Amino acid sequence: MAAILGNKIKMAIFGQSHAEAIGVVIYGIKAGEKIDTEKLQKFMERRAPGRDEFSTPRKEADEVIFVSGLIDGLTCGAPICAMIKNNNIKKNDYDDLKDIPRPGHSDFAAFMKFGDDFDSSGGGQFSGRMTAPMCIAGGIAKQLLETKGVEVSAAIDEIAGFQGDKMYDAMREAKKEEDSVGGIISCLIHGVKPGLGDAMFDGIEGSIARGIFGIPAVKGIEFGSGFSGSRLKGSENNDEFISDGDKIITKTNKHGGILGGISSGMPISFRVAVKPTPSIGKMQNSVNTKTKENVKMTVRGRHDPCIVPRAVPVVEAVAAFVIYDMMMSE
Amino acid sequence: MAAILGNKIKMAIFGQSHAEAIGVVIYGIKAGEKIDTEKLQKFMERRAPGRDEFSTPRKEADEVIFVSGLIDGLTCGAPICAMIKNNNIKKNDYDDLKDIPRPGHSDFAAFMKFGDDFDSSGGGQFSGRMTAPMCIAGGIAKQLLETKGVEVSAAIDEIAGFQGDKMYDAMREAKKEEDSVGGIISCLIHGVKPGLGDAMFDGIEGSIARGIFGIPAVKGIEFGSGFSGSRLKGSENNDEFISDGDKIITKTNKHGGILGGISSGMPISFRVAVKPTPSIGKMQNSVNTKTKENVKMTVRGRHDPCIVPRAVPVVEAVAAFVIYDMMMSE
Amino acid sequence: MAAILGNKIKMAIFGQSHAEAIGVVIYGIKAGEKIDTEKLQKFMERRAPGRDEFSTPRKEADEVIFVSGLIDGLTCGAPICAMIKNNNIKKNDYDDLKDIPRPGHSDFAAFMKFGDDFDSSGGGQFSGRMTAPMCIAGGIAKQLLETKGVEVSAAIDEIAGFQGDKMYDAMREAKKEEDSVGGIISCLIHGVKPGLGDAMFDGIEGSIARGIFGIPAVKGIEFGSGFSGSRLKGSENNDEFISDGDKIITKTNKHGGILGGISSGMPISFRVAVKPTPSIGKMQNSVNTKTKENVKMTVRGRHDPCIVPRAVPVVEAVAAFVIYDMMMSE
Amino acid sequence: MAAILGNKIKMAIFGQSHAEAIGVVIYGIKAGEKIDTEKLQKFMERRAPGRDEFSTPRKEADEVIFVSGLIDGLTCGAPICAMIKNNNIKKNDYDDLKDIPRPGHSDFAAFMKFGDDFDSSGGGQFSGRMTAPMCIAGGIAKQLLETKGVEVSAAIDEIAGFQGDKMYDAMREAKKEEDSVGGIISCLIHGVKPGLGDAMFDGIEGSIARGIFGIPAVKGIEFGSGFSGSRLKGSENNDEFISDGDKIITKTNKHGGILGGISSGMPISFRVAVKPTPSIGKMQNSVNTKTKENVKMTVRGRHDPCIVPRAVPVVEAVAAFVIYDMMMSE
Repeated sequence: MAAILGNKIKMAIFGQSHAEAIGVVIYGIKAGEKIDTEKLQKFMERRAPGRDEFSTPRKEADEVIFVSGLIDGLTCGAPICAMIKNNNIKKNDYDDLKDIPRPGHSDFAAFMKFGDDFDSSGGGQFSGRMTAPMCIAGGIAKQLLETKGVEVSAAIDEIAGFQGDKMYDAMREAKKEEDSVGGIISCLIHGVKPGLGDAMFDGIEGSIARGIFGIPAVKGIEFGSGFSGSRLKGSENNDEFISDGDKIITKTNKHGGILGGISSGMPISFRVAVKPTPSIGKMQNSVNTKTKENVKMTVRGRHDPCIVPRAVPVVEAVAAFVIYDMMMSE
Repeated sequence: MAAILGNKIKMAIFGQSHAEAIGVVIYGIKAGEKIDTEKLQKFMERRAPGRDEFSTPRKEADEVIFVSGLIDGLTCGAPICAMIKNNNIKKNDYDDLKDIPRPGHSDFAAFMKFGDDFDSSGGGQFSGRMTAPMCIAGGIAKQLLETKGVEVSAAIDEIAGFQGDKMYDAMREAKKEEDSVGGIISCLIHGVKPGLGDAMFDGIEGSIARGIFGIPAVKGIEFGSGFSGSRLKGSENNDEFISDGDKIITKTNKHGGILGGISSGMPISFRVAVKPTPSIGKMQNSVNTKTKENVKMTVRGRHDPCIVPRAVPVVEAVAAFVIYDMMMSE
Repeated sequence: MAAILGNKIKMAIFGQSHAEAIGVVIYGIKAGEKIDTEKLQKFMERRAPGRDEFSTPRKEADEVIFVSGLIDGLTCGAPICAMIKNNNIKKNDYDDLKDIPRPGHSDFAAFMKFGDDFDSSGGGQFSGRMTAPMCIAGGIAKQLLETKGVEVSAAIDEIAGFQGDKMYDAMREAKKEEDSVGGIISCLIHGVKPGLGDAMFDGIEGSIARGIFGIPAVKGIEFGSGFSGSRLKGSENNDEFISDGDKIITKTNKHGGILGGISSGMPISFRVAVKPTPSIGKMQNSVNTKTKENVKMTVRGRHDPCIVPRAVPVVEAVAAFVIYDMMMSE
Repeated sequence: MAAILGNKIKMAIFGQSHAEAIGVVIYGIKAGEKIDTEKLQKFMERRAPGRDEFSTPRKEADEVIFVSGLIDGLTCGAPICAMIKNNNIKKNDYDDLKDIPRPGHSDFAAFMKFGDDFDSSGGGQFSGRMTAPMCIAGGIAKQLLETKGVEVSAAIDEIAGFQGDKMYDAMREAKKEEDSVGGIISCLIHGVKPGLGDAMFDGIEGSIARGIFGIPAVKGIEFGSGFSGSRLKGSENNDEFISDGDKIITKTNKHGGILGGISSGMPISFRVAVKPTPSIGKMQNSVNTKTKENVKMTVRGRHDPCIVPRAVPVVEAVAAFVIYDMMMSE
């Protein structure tokens, strides 16, 4: 099920880019949990557009409306339904692109799957906007994890291959050139006790990966030393154990907090590759799917020259949701 | 469920390193499909130990015994149960390590999850040996995909950071030093028609990733241009569409055959980071989990200095299984 | 997941009796399916209160609002979210019953499960009102089945043990006495081709049963000759096969259209036992869950003396949904 | 998945009537649970053939062989695989029936689903023999429930509509006439604490029903007062609450221990309708599926004139498994 994630705790997303509303139903959270809706709203704003010079101008506040499951800030055991109204349902913006798939976008693949009845306007189900409901569910999971001493935090690691101030130069330059840049997000999860996860297909890596690849534009994930670890020797990549008071820890954390799919008690760490925004103002070659003619096209409108900053809270949200679900499924 | 993968077609693995047998039950394959058991046996041998100087000496033939579901080489609609007997059930080899977790191994995490009752001998459920049943299920899926024009092939891309002949030097050197090396496996899937997969959490990337992280020692995965693509500009990373007779294809394949989680019709490509074998003969620091004392230890016995070559067919198997399941679930 | 039903097609219900709204998200319906929303609204009205002298006076129209997934009456491939606003969110009606469970109701069991944070007002998730979203999802499935030649129809078979006009007398008498009556609903599904379903746990009987027991107040289900068939001899209960032109049919239909969990091509038939409405005006004994004191109580307000008539479309809806899901999962 | 039952704890059945072996893999049981294999073997014998004059002569001992997951009687955390060898793989017995479906059997429906490649010999996956693996998984669940104070016990309630000694007369007469009889099995589950289960589709009724309908020949199920309760008034069918020391109980148990899908703490009770064995020696009408000709046929061989006695432990097994899974999923 494309829009459902989780086992004991499930997020079931609904909506498409230009529907009346988008939202999520969250199943499995027990009665009596406190949700701080103001804090959630602030979390949502980290993802919202219009916050800086690199994102599309803000059009809507992404205000979360709770429809069910929450009474005076406490869960009541019923499914939690929360939604965000789409105030800006203009479908015409993209009409001239209806038969011309944008390079790097889902348009072509979605057309081949769904055919003409697919609501392609604004990207439909594939729109970056669908990450807002992920942030609702994940933002709630993040709050509930905090009460259990688990902290999830993501940050920009690279943009366009750069770290530090040069990242911002790269974004500015891309914007000026009507081009775009991608980047890498790192995520750290502190406070997960040893023993979470399982062998084979229920390991933490696979569970997080399935969630994270649900975020549009993600094309890679690595845990701990990841790809660079594959170039080390065993004696370099193995993390030796040492006693630390009552606990056993590792001196280093090349394993990213996960051994055999199971948490070791060290911080869980992973990195996510985000491709450059496919929407660019530069002229590109494409094909009219109806006439099969090769055409030139540009993607009009204002687009984020880089979505990496706005994807950071989404990575946090999805990681938090997966870990919370795994903890509740034990 | 740690040992179950798939939706419409499921593989349900059983066994542990030193059980009587290990095996798999495959659900959902319809009646009347032809399985070439000899071809499957040959596929199994690509994974089996003892094939070259870099793998542990062969002890068992990994002979696949079909228990149910197959009559005269044809599926009959009942679940297919296939197993491999463990001829070599010696548990004592590892007894002196029972309370001393091996660095880089699942021992410590598994102990924290399962406690003392866990069958840790030979790695239990976490043993590389559990990839044999994956190869049975995946080998069957591979055969069935071939009848539909889909070919799955994996290959060594890097070992210890090297390509070509230097890879073998690196393995030889690691062996001599009682150390180990890791590497990267690339996988290509040809023949998947456009339109397979779905948005968000049922995209091809997430589905393959969940399966591939089920293989022990995998720590990263990237699709298409992956991590390096995150350092390109949109204009460089977007694959432009062109007409190719009746079809629409892309000039390049930075997207790895997947857009918006859905196949584009171009070859699906991904790369998998495999960490260096954690079992090494070198002395390492660890801790006795009972006494909490820091100790020195070596992992005795003969170990593969590099498991990457034997992991290649496992990557093929898991990828084939996931794609076959996705195609049958449409 | 208590509020999720289905495999390839899923209904995910949200809301509770006194939430802002109740609704359902439907996953898996492919793009381009035509939904007649007026016809759906009419179907909803068969379940709505206030239609006759035996149901609570109408307070709300149960108007279905489509939030996503439907554009100009056609599905677009995105999840379909539909909701019904609760105009009448009065929680106080039941406040004096907060600590006194109503006999025959879910109150006590729900309190033992959820504790005090459970939103018990109006029955919360256990309210008969939650059958409205089932009717949305099932009403859509029913329409889609009709395009495939499958008709689902349920009817009252018995009320208070009576058939025919005496049923209405029994309801009137129960109403007068501030008591209630139950009954039996029969359901027939015409047009399912032979070969739907599967052995063991995916048989049609088990799949329908799981759905139907999701309807509050259902306490039994039997297929074909059911309980009475258990009193026949094999020679009486077996349905002999005969040729009917191209097809093979059975002379009788004691098997209710299902053999070995699989459809035979004969009409699928089953009967559902609905208990008498637990809400009655008569004085009953109960216990204060806080003080543990035995108390006398009456359930105030106006209640349906019999919910069987309103449950008929719900049985149709759930049966249609299960069969549609099974057909789409093939 | 036809042969998989359960959420946190899963049984995955394999085999068909005339395969090398039949068996089950059980997932999710944690390490360190004690399984009494002798006790399990005794439980299996309650289901085995040849125990009395009403069952087919014993041909095989149904000896359970543990392949994995169990070490010295303790679970080790790996999946438990257990199998029973089929010593008696004679496929020819039924060959003359290959194209002639037996009335009341799954043959016709299975042929319509699977076609000619289906292994119909001995009933294939639909054989009553497949209840043996259910008894392995359920017998283990029953043992584990006992350690938690939960007792599951089923008994014959009716045979051929009779209770007491007349049941045996009816079976004897059916045997003499080469006919068969059915019956009703009642099941009681003591010791389930209040609060197990959930609203709507995860209620205890629906969960047990899905499992029980997986047993061949079951055509109906009712909980508590069930069908007869539908003929009572609310004031008669409601169970009043009373204080009982610290606890709150009900005076009567018409609700069968389940309110709103959730356990009330009273014994869970249900009744199961089993149809008369479809295999009878009497001549019956059928149709040749290839030629479409009407034919007369008799089912040769020795058959149980009544399978109800042997189905009793199967009902216990499946009910125990479902309740154990629900308790472990909390």
